[in-house]
Amino acid sequence: MKIGAKHYRSIWFNDAKQAVEIIDQRWLPHELRIVELKSLKDFASAIADMWVRGAPLIGATAAFGIAEQIKKDPSDASLNEAWEILHETRPTAINLRWALNDMRDLLKKMPEAKRAEIAHNRALEISDEDVECNRQIGLHGLEIIKKIAANKNPGEPVNILTHCNAGWLATVDWGTATSPIYHAVEAGIAVHIWVDETRPRNQGAQLTAWEMDSQGVPHHLIVDNAGGHLMQHGDVDMVIVGTDRTSAHGDVCNKIGTYLKALAAKDNNIPFYVALPSTTIDWTIKNGVLEIPIEERHSDEVTKVWGKLENGSLGAVQISPDGTPGSNPAFDVTPSRLVTGLITERGLCEASREGIAGLFPERVLD
Amino acid sequence: MKIGAKHYRSIWFNDAKQAVEIIDQRWLPHELRIVELKSLKDFASAIADMWVRGAPLIGATAAFGIAEQIKKDPSDASLNEAWEILHETRPTAINLRWALNDMRDLLKKMPEAKRAEIAHNRALEISDEDVECNRQIGLHGLEIIKKIAANKNPGEPVNILTHCNAGWLATVDWGTATSPIYHAVEAGIAVHIWVDETRPRNQGAQLTAWEMDSQGVPHHLIVDNAGGHLMQHGDVDMVIVGTDRTSAHGDVCNKIGTYLKALAAKDNNIPFYVALPSTTIDWTIKNGVLEIPIEERHSDEVTKVWGKLENGSLGAVQISPDGTPGSNPAFDVTPSRLVTGLITERGLCEASREGIAGLFPERVLD
Repeated sequence: MKIGAKHYRSIWFNDAKQAVEIIDQRWLPHELRIVELKSLKDFASAIADMWVRGAPLIGATAAFGIAEQIKKDPSDASLNEAWEILHETRPTAINLRWALNDMRDLLKKMPEAKRAEIAHNRALEISDEDVECNRQIGLHGLEIIKKIAANKNPGEPVNILTHCNAGWLATVDWGTATSPIYHAVEAGIAVHIWVDETRPRNQGAQLTAWEMDSQGVPHHLIVDNAGGHLMQHGDVDMVIVGTDRTSAHGDVCNKIGTYLKALAAKDNNIPFYVALPSTTIDWTIKNGVLEIPIEERHSDEVTKVWGKLENGSLGAVQISPDGTPGSNPAFDVTPSRLVTGLITERGLCEASREGIAGLFPERVLD
Repeated sequence: MKIGAKHYRSIWFNDAKQAVEIIDQRWLPHELRIVELKSLKDFASAIADMWVRGAPLIGATAAFGIAEQIKKDPSDASLNEAWEILHETRPTAINLRWALNDMRDLLKKMPEAKRAEIAHNRALEISDEDVECNRQIGLHGLEIIKKIAANKNPGEPVNILTHCNAGWLATVDWGTATSPIYHAVEAGIAVHIWVDETRPRNQGAQLTAWEMDSQGVPHHLIVDNAGGHLMQHGDVDMVIVGTDRTSAHGDVCNKIGTYLKALAAKDNNIPFYVALPSTTIDWTIKNGVLEIPIEERHSDEVTKVWGKLENGSLGAVQISPDGTPGSNPAFDVTPSRLVTGLITERGLCEASREGIAGLFPERVLD
């Protein structure tokens, strides 16, 4: 999407520099920093330390990481090492494993002399596939927004609540949850976005609000506590969120707090949609609440908040007493019974084994 | 409760100085600042700008505000002016109106020459009544914790989640939601508290965590998003929160986000209790969601977070882009159907018209 007048992806190969570049998202919304990723360590840090985040972008970054490593050393040992190092960076996002397996399985079959070129092209292709996938998600989601807009009074926007950042910054472009929003804006439909700040890392405040501001989409930032109240009072027409891992039966593992919004949507008869590329579906998992491992992150993310200081520099404030420890589960799982529907690149389906299998019959394991 | 070795209330009359003193809670947990309130403007600022907060403490502060004003000018005009100025400081907390009406109705009947002494004594009495009321709430709530503890394995603490600060800092002493916790600790029951940070103003992180730390109660700070996940995984045995206004039919208006925790508790069959002095009951209101006015506070509270900077000074960080506005409803209403029970100074009751009327038959209006 655009930043000012220029179109960006969140990761790209710079032909002039012969290097992978990313937007280092740790500095948004306050600074736009673009950095090169060179070594395997760079790629691993970029994922683990959240220079890039969002399940689809993590997958694309991992694919580029394999490709760059293979250019240096095309051996099986090198490939396996890269797979291991990149795989352990983030435990929850399933796209990471998907992208790593895709690259490894492809390259293992190829002669070493050809691996660099094949890996490079496949990483680019994974990026392009992600963009097209998200475009399709947007077109399918647009139909839902159109129907809601048709029932609003003239001039009233469709109020959409979203949690965390499932925006173009979480993917290669378009985003998952935001793709229907951007497509609605392009179609001339009035929308207004409630942006959950999404503590502890505030991806909503830092990234989704920045995306909305950059694209000129009307929005308000709200604390994560506010969505239920807004839903009780008719101020939310729909919820769209992304997912880091979706069980084969339709349970949705997404940023911590998603489950609370799904409960509130259900309690107020508000549609709750999850937008996802099918690469986030973990076909081996049925019961998401019981089976999906939840990353526990550092206590500091809870006890401190990062942002722009009054003097314009960037820094953190500690919000709690020195003696108070934080506990920091990073994701939760929303049971399928709370999900109105899944918006995938192949269309809309029910959040159930039957619904998912209907769209992706060739991938079902059981 | 204690700060170090010394016992404090949150508001008191300093006989040596002949002045009302409070803990200026805006600086907690980083600094303990005690300030005198002198003019009517001081009292109004203390309430409106949240030097003190919490429904019972707001009531006690307003009573002292009337008393100090009456010492300066005991006329009806002065009394009415004080009532008006103090009444408009915060729109949601019902105790404010209760305390102001109590003082005005008492003083109007008295000759002007006697009003100063009567007002002073009544303000002290309102404080003492609040302390005793919260002690009773604690004793009744203790019985619930005892029953849960009896079903835990030896050595396992009772895990209690609380939202915002309904602690001794929100009352004159003991707190409402925290009084059962402090009584359980005194009774030798092992407890562990999940402290919701409670954005936007972080009263959980700043005040409840500080209370727990000061009293040595085991606790972890969590983001407001985390409670649902903890409940899904059996890590929460009960929820206790306070209330700023309770409808006569048992709906509970409390800090924004309370409703989301009540939904999660219901979804996971976890008891959700509300601790309240009966002064928070608004006997004129039946349907809390429709009838209780919700204070909309400043956008800056959402877009900025206050705390201790890396250099030890206090300040704020802006978390969102300059162009992003915040929306800031300060309270929400939890429908009675989600509340397991109300813990009052007269004992436990169902959150319903019948339940409340059973404990307070003399106060029911309809």
